[in-house]
Amino acid sequence: MTNTTISAYAAPAPKAPLEKTTIPRRALGEQDILIDIKFAGICHSDIHQVDGDWGDGIFPMVPGHEIAGVVSEVGPGVTRYAVGDRVGVGCFVDSCRECDNCRAGLEQYCTGGGMVGTYNSVGRDGEPTYGGYSTHLVVDENYAVRIPESIPLDAAAPLLCAGITLYSPINHWQAGPGKKVAVIGLGGLGHMGVKIAHAKGAEVTVLSQSLRKREDGLRLGAAHYYATSDPATFAELAGSFDLILNTVSADLDLNAYLGLLRTDGTFVQIGAPENPAPVHAFALMGGRRSLAGSMIGGIPETQEMLDFCAEHGLAADIEVIRADQINEAYRRVQASDVRYRFVIDIATI
Amino acid sequence: MTNTTISAYAAPAPKAPLEKTTIPRRALGEQDILIDIKFAGICHSDIHQVDGDWGDGIFPMVPGHEIAGVVSEVGPGVTRYAVGDRVGVGCFVDSCRECDNCRAGLEQYCTGGGMVGTYNSVGRDGEPTYGGYSTHLVVDENYAVRIPESIPLDAAAPLLCAGITLYSPINHWQAGPGKKVAVIGLGGLGHMGVKIAHAKGAEVTVLSQSLRKREDGLRLGAAHYYATSDPATFAELAGSFDLILNTVSADLDLNAYLGLLRTDGTFVQIGAPENPAPVHAFALMGGRRSLAGSMIGGIPETQEMLDFCAEHGLAADIEVIRADQINEAYRRVQASDVRYRFVIDIATI
Repeated sequence: MTNTTISAYAAPAPKAPLEKTTIPRRALGEQDILIDIKFAGICHSDIHQVDGDWGDGIFPMVPGHEIAGVVSEVGPGVTRYAVGDRVGVGCFVDSCRECDNCRAGLEQYCTGGGMVGTYNSVGRDGEPTYGGYSTHLVVDENYAVRIPESIPLDAAAPLLCAGITLYSPINHWQAGPGKKVAVIGLGGLGHMGVKIAHAKGAEVTVLSQSLRKREDGLRLGAAHYYATSDPATFAELAGSFDLILNTVSADLDLNAYLGLLRTDGTFVQIGAPENPAPVHAFALMGGRRSLAGSMIGGIPETQEMLDFCAEHGLAADIEVIRADQINEAYRRVQASDVRYRFVIDIATI
Repeated sequence: MTNTTISAYAAPAPKAPLEKTTIPRRALGEQDILIDIKFAGICHSDIHQVDGDWGDGIFPMVPGHEIAGVVSEVGPGVTRYAVGDRVGVGCFVDSCRECDNCRAGLEQYCTGGGMVGTYNSVGRDGEPTYGGYSTHLVVDENYAVRIPESIPLDAAAPLLCAGITLYSPINHWQAGPGKKVAVIGLGGLGHMGVKIAHAKGAEVTVLSQSLRKREDGLRLGAAHYYATSDPATFAELAGSFDLILNTVSADLDLNAYLGLLRTDGTFVQIGAPENPAPVHAFALMGGRRSLAGSMIGGIPETQEMLDFCAEHGLAADIEVIRADQINEAYRRVQASDVRYRFVIDIATI
């Protein structure tokens, strides 16, 4: 394949509705694979970037970093994949490969210039990157992962961001048997948190604004479900959790939530609130508590997550949509009206 | 010894100067030891409590939780100490003894009602506790520690709070060979942080407002010394530290300091700023950083710290004062005019 033009859905300008267009894909390099994209998940961060919430974006913007597809061509130096392999690509497509973090498989924390985002970023070739709302992707084989046969490609797509974003902190802070884990928010991220933490053997509690999705939460693996709009929740659960995973990007009273941690417990920011939150030192000092952050996961851990999901029969709960429904889906994501992830059927582009 | 009256220095009311007075000490119980107090350190938190900065206090208030002395009488059930033993008492004199934390030797995080402070607290007998600015203390043997022979009692006193307050996080977050540790503030707490982290084998950097105490910092064991008033410091040290120990209680721009952490690094609040600090989730998420808190240490770890200090020839740098100089010393502490801890010679009461 030489440098070519493919179909995609793009936002032509900040906050503009997405529309069908064409974009270039680079010619296959030595270590590149060409992926026929089958499904792409819609992540809330796609909407933030289209809307310019996280700073200036590069337009036209083709979002999509939850990509599942099949290898259709390989570069001459490719060793890890063959034509026909089922593969996924997540939030980044390159990094410096030389810093301590890249060498340790923590490419998401690359200190040699930072990871190259799957879209809204600039690659090594100086060209903007375009994401998964498109028919094909050319990517270095080292930045793809293998999707196990037992996971359907549509339900696998959201694992590449939502799945690893929860798996990594659950893994890093060693949630497992005997540990109590709370997941704040039962959305695209939260529902994967419940599934994975439960599969790891932890006792999972969902903390949601209301009890509206309680039945779902219990079905997904939660042992308990509390409404955070009820002040009694904070009194009842004081000092309960080893790990709290905050998947919501709304502003929360962190000091109140820190009070729910046990001694040596950790509250992890996973959603990305726009505003800084006031944190009181005493809320951390009493009980040696930690407030931490976690951001997706590296390539080796993403592969580990997919293998773990296959082993435990996990995947995302999805609603498959046509490409011409993307803008409507964005509105529904903003209204939290999705259980739990929209996935675009790329064949409809 | 029956219930008796002893001499002490007390603040009769909030913000009032301390003056000589008498206070009661309880009769020796089954497991109690009577300590002839020789020296008591002046901790900045003594001043906060006299001033009512941390809420209503109990007055008259006899501060002092850095206590070094000699056992002069033991209750019939005492097994750990004998008359003549050199002992210390730190920030607490009791706790529930039954919760998981008490059983684990983390009495400072007691969840069964909380630790009983050495002063400005109420003991099991329902009576207020009075601290170390006094000639004698009656305390349960389980809440005292042994001061090794090689550490002079005057320089040992501050180890009971300043020493353990730094030793515990340095130990918990495993600062040692190959680790880079920053200590913010070179005061009573900070100077012990530099000594202990250096003795543990870590590479220590002092971050101070100015370079005024640079020579001291290097003498105490720091390899580097930077002024935080110089913005270049934050650019130069970005992503440098495994552990940052914040000993100052002034309001800092935590997001700027979080940027000085390496991947998986931890910033620990040890000083206790009155105001909550705004923390941006992105400052934590990029690099899986943590903002944590730590509060003194438990009895077993306090003993371990004293033994470690003896082994490495460490103690506090002190200025011994007479009891009638306490109020002047308070003013000098507030002006950061002490290198690095005032210690009251209790014989002068």
